Amino acid sequence: MTRVAIIGPGLLGGSLALALAGRPGVELRLWGRRMAVLDQARALGIEARMERDVREAVRGADVVVLCVPVGVMPELVFECLSDLGRETLVTDVGSVKAEVVAKLAPMLEGRALFVGSHPMAGSEKTGLEAARADLFEGAVCLVTPEEGRTSAEATTRATLFWRGVGCEVREVAPGLHDAMVARISHVPHVVAAGVVNAVGREMPGAFEFCGPGFRDTTRVASGSPSMWTEILRCNRREVVGGVREVIGQLEEVAGILERLDAPENAGSASMELDDFLSVAKQRRDALRLG
Amino acid sequence: MTRVAIIGPGLLGGSLALALAGRPGVELRLWGRRMAVLDQARALGIEARMERDVREAVRGADVVVLCVPVGVMPELVFECLSDLGRETLVTDVGSVKAEVVAKLAPMLEGRALFVGSHPMAGSEKTGLEAARADLFEGAVCLVTPEEGRTSAEATTRATLFWRGVGCEVREVAPGLHDAMVARISHVPHVVAAGVVNAVGREMPGAFEFCGPGFRDTTRVASGSPSMWTEILRCNRREVVGGVREVIGQLEEVAGILERLDAPENAGSASMELDDFLSVAKQRRDALRLG
Repeated sequence: MTRVAIIGPGLLGGSLALALAGRPGVELRLWGRRMAVLDQARALGIEARMERDVREAVRGADVVVLCVPVGVMPELVFECLSDLGRETLVTDVGSVKAEVVAKLAPMLEGRALFVGSHPMAGSEKTGLEAARADLFEGAVCLVTPEEGRTSAEATTRATLFWRGVGCEVREVAPGLHDAMVARISHVPHVVAAGVVNAVGREMPGAFEFCGPGFRDTTRVASGSPSMWTEILRCNRREVVGGVREVIGQLEEVAGILERLDAPENAGSASMELDDFLSVAKQRRDALRLG
Repeated sequence: MTRVAIIGPGLLGGSLALALAGRPGVELRLWGRRMAVLDQARALGIEARMERDVREAVRGADVVVLCVPVGVMPELVFECLSDLGRETLVTDVGSVKAEVVAKLAPMLEGRALFVGSHPMAGSEKTGLEAARADLFEGAVCLVTPEEGRTSAEATTRATLFWRGVGCEVREVAPGLHDAMVARISHVPHVVAAGVVNAVGREMPGAFEFCGPGFRDTTRVASGSPSMWTEILRCNRREVVGGVREVIGQLEEVAGILERLDAPENAGSASMELDDFLSVAKQRRDALRLG
């Protein structure tokens, strides 16, 4: 029997509960602050022991998965510290890792087995109502052991846990995780919001003519502002770096387009523009996804 | 009997042919430069008179739709100028309008009825093999009459034509069209390519961890480089303006994120960031599409 405590019934916690509920050999506990949300979870068919006391939720658990906003994790872990078993695997689903790991790992050292995780399975939707049993199927989950601190057992057990719900697991150090995720998730989020806000400020009438290109390019801008404020805040150094890298690319294109005005440069500028777009196409086409 | 000549069997021309072929009361002609592509069109089930001579294709036609790259349109129209009827409606599907209209309208004045069109139904795919009979269903088509020049009859007939293949038609002047389409299509394209190229240059290892957010945000970067070079070149002034507007937004976010570092600013910066994301979310959620 594996006792799994899911801490937080949002999109990720709820989806994890839906994926695990009713599996033979799994005993599930779901912790939430508000009874109404736990009732909603039950109404969705999640068979789990519903808990509002986090200490009760984790007591005797083999695996504890923190599915609350990263800013809330330290206090919750602190609250139930004495209820964790030394062999309990604690992991989380936060999308920023260096700061979270730096806070949780020392707190949990010697008290439980800890390694950070980041299942890349979110969407612009949030909350239990968007939860799906198959959310993790085929998603990449980044597990982030710290060299010299995280036990191999924690990493192995977290890997098997995420594979069990359909994830493809990769290992990456917390700092490199944050640098990479800034580039492929946090910066694209800022850029999407920036594109929407630029149109909103300069030419709001254009929204009426949006096609599928604009829709896709800006979809992530519909994400929860409070959640993303917290993510961007936690990873601000890498995000600023990544945003400046994108600004550099945009300045480059603007420069090329301006050189097209002068007939003597038009030919070479046209080729530079084609190169810029060709390199992007080649890279984009090479992505595994879609 | 309505005789429709589709000039150019690419994604848009091919889809238009698929949508119209076999309709009662429609006689279709499809012009292409290469026999192989016309054979391919026939293999796709397009029932049309296949023509390699553009003069033959347009002779006696009631409607001529130019579905070739915008740079090629003037020479093709010039070639068949004497074969057009004064009552023939000529329109096009180019995604840039001011330059196209400025070239075609004077050439066609008194020789045919002309108004520009832009059915916003492309995708990152191109070519006949991506054509679909329902490509225009539900798409917005912008029809771009010039005040004081375009006849009301041309505008009305083009409107009815596009509605006939499922488009929702809006009227907008060519210059305003280009300004708006720059913001909602051309600039997002440049931004998507810029995001991909920034990652490619600074942290290519991160591509391996892309999730659905990155995939959607950058999908349009898979578009044809040569086609997009031409589009961006034609609309370069508006595109440069729009790119600089996005740079302005990104500088703003980078500034907010940097202010988060100083404890005395962190509270107000955090609120500014939340505001920035909330405004974007509100705008994005209000879009009719997805």
